[in-house]
Amino acid sequence: MKFNIALLAGDGIGPEVIHEAVKVSDAIAKKFNHEITWTPALTGACAIDAVGVPYPDETHEICMAADAVLFGAIGHPKYDNDPSAPVRPEQGLLLMRKKLGLFANVRPTFTFPSLIDNSPLKRERIEGTDLVFLRELTGGIYFGEKGRKDDGETAFDTCTYTRPEVQRLAKKGFELAMTRTKKLCCVDKANVMETSRLWRETVQAMEKDYPEVTVSYEFVDAVAMRLVQWPNSYDVLITENLFGDILTDEASVISGSMGLMPSASVGEHTSLYEPIHGSYPQATGLNIANPLATVLSAAMMFEDAFGLKEEAEAIRTVVNKSLEQGIVTEDLASKDSKAYKTSEVGDWLVANL
Amino acid sequence: MKFNIALLAGDGIGPEVIHEAVKVSDAIAKKFNHEITWTPALTGACAIDAVGVPYPDETHEICMAADAVLFGAIGHPKYDNDPSAPVRPEQGLLLMRKKLGLFANVRPTFTFPSLIDNSPLKRERIEGTDLVFLRELTGGIYFGEKGRKDDGETAFDTCTYTRPEVQRLAKKGFELAMTRTKKLCCVDKANVMETSRLWRETVQAMEKDYPEVTVSYEFVDAVAMRLVQWPNSYDVLITENLFGDILTDEASVISGSMGLMPSASVGEHTSLYEPIHGSYPQATGLNIANPLATVLSAAMMFEDAFGLKEEAEAIRTVVNKSLEQGIVTEDLASKDSKAYKTSEVGDWLVANL
Ligand SMILES: CC(C)[C@H](C(=O)O)[C@@H](O)C(=O)O
Ligand SMILES: CC(C)[C@H](C(=O)O)[C@@H](O)C(=O)O
Repeated sequence: MKFNIALLAGDGIGPEVIHEAVKVSDAIAKKFNHEITWTPALTGACAIDAVGVPYPDETHEICMAADAVLFGAIGHPKYDNDPSAPVRPEQGLLLMRKKLGLFANVRPTFTFPSLIDNSPLKRERIEGTDLVFLRELTGGIYFGEKGRKDDGETAFDTCTYTRPEVQRLAKKGFELAMTRTKKLCCVDKANVMETSRLWRETVQAMEKDYPEVTVSYEFVDAVAMRLVQWPNSYDVLITENLFGDILTDEASVISGSMGLMPSASVGEHTSLYEPIHGSYPQATGLNIANPLATVLSAAMMFEDAFGLKEEAEAIRTVVNKSLEQGIVTEDLASKDSKAYKTSEVGDWLVANL
Repeated sequence: MKFNIALLAGDGIGPEVIHEAVKVSDAIAKKFNHEITWTPALTGACAIDAVGVPYPDETHEICMAADAVLFGAIGHPKYDNDPSAPVRPEQGLLLMRKKLGLFANVRPTFTFPSLIDNSPLKRERIEGTDLVFLRELTGGIYFGEKGRKDDGETAFDTCTYTRPEVQRLAKKGFELAMTRTKKLCCVDKANVMETSRLWRETVQAMEKDYPEVTVSYEFVDAVAMRLVQWPNSYDVLITENLFGDILTDEASVISGSMGLMPSASVGEHTSLYEPIHGSYPQATGLNIANPLATVLSAAMMFEDAFGLKEEAEAIRTVVNKSLEQGIVTEDLASKDSKAYKTSEVGDWLVANL
């Protein structure tokens, strides 16, 4: 098969981890007889520096024309201190999500047996954890009307959802639950928010179409607790944009493998794959960043965007092997073992595919 | 001194734990020569059952006339399954907060040396944790305009804050920080929300009035992570209503002593003290609920509402003693030790004051 992949390396360590994911993807393509064309494009702080906006039209066109987007990370400290600055890298992220219609952010949290002791949680709490959040990504308070009144003394943000927005996200949730243990949790704040009540009634109405799926409804504050107490009691969780922002980040640290977690954003026009970690500016250019989350995001891309399960499994297998054999960057190296460089980990993966 | 305390036992285990807190408070009053008048009033499901509304006017008048309010818990399963039901116990809670002007919810999270191994987190992560959230409680998306449009197909909620609302909460935060390690963290989502930008700029402008306090600004998603990773890196945190709802509950489980955490809500007219746990309907009437969070809430009341530090310390000391000696309810009893009844724990506390 032939694929055209938009390559958005972004800022900080983005280019370094993307470089390794490209190496591994190319090796997989060679092995399985596919042909990948990578089309690089600018986004984030590097795009602001180059052309003044964080998500240039040209980048958008490249993404729209691609079969999938592989994304690194964005953000640079020089834009960090003033969230009210007129142009910021994160705006590029939000614009990209909206313009590409990436309405569902898929965020798995699972454990690697060899890394389980890195978790801040006790082993018996985290063992067996394998959950997926589907976070709505193009609606809610992120994109509702916002502004000031009374000469700037009053601020407001509006959270809005329509029934079809909830339906398309929930549909993905039900479908995903059907491929797993058929347990779906709808996270809301229906005791306070009207948008949550719309979420809940919409999901409730869809239950009859998926009679095998057991649906539970939990308040966001209760989920924030149970994620720390019994993370392995969850399977698929669906939620709105802001709750998803908070809970997926909370979930990401419980496994102790945050540096390894991949993610996908899927939608109307294309889909995008990215590590959940940030641009880690302090490590830029040092060749020390852990590339595995980006490599595993490429695996998700092979499986979900191209339907190539075997290719994805081959990547996951070699990643597991590298972890077991301690071919890891300094964030995962134990005190008395060698820390490999970003590029050395990539080389090892390619050689052992 | 003489105090008039409104006693809102509420639903479920509320009356049982309140009963023990009253016993302990009366014993303290006797010991230190104070006189307490308790005025019971209805709120929650029991108020709906009795008079049709969850926060009756009569209850409000009793609270307004009191020097402080001691509160148990509200909520009953018969009102749980339908968040869109016209009358619900939580509405009583929100109405009470609003009408009493309880704009700041004070939520400490700390560890008890003897209970540290109950935490889902590893000992080295949680040791030394002693943080306090100040959650704004009468503004934000809880009380903004909300509703439906397009024949019910679109729902919206509005989050609104005014500068004075932020200032009065932040002032409490700075003042509290001054009595502790002088570290204040303002939690917001200023990269997305306009209300968060108002929060941030308002707090920034107040920094000059508290030159000794070191203020940090963190995004809510980052705090949701760091609370699990390094809870002991925080001291005082201030945040808006919805973020506070999620984060204080998350924080409550990290210590492993959720059943023991007290809280206060302070405001314009009076202040209210309550355990953070819920009404635990399954345990109602069984005399097994842990009364310590309510007893410790009474200690907060003595200290913060009445300025009686010694009395508060006496309560905390006897609670610690009961924990060390294993005079605990079944939630804290170890496998091979006796579980005491709710009332037995209260009796022991009174006898050992
Ligand atoms: C950078 C920020 C706007 C973004 C968000 O809140 O969605 C980030 O936290 C994320 O989760 O991807
Ligand atoms: C019951 C509910 C409305 C309430 C809230 O969200 O404030 C509760 O979760 C709390 O934190 O006291």
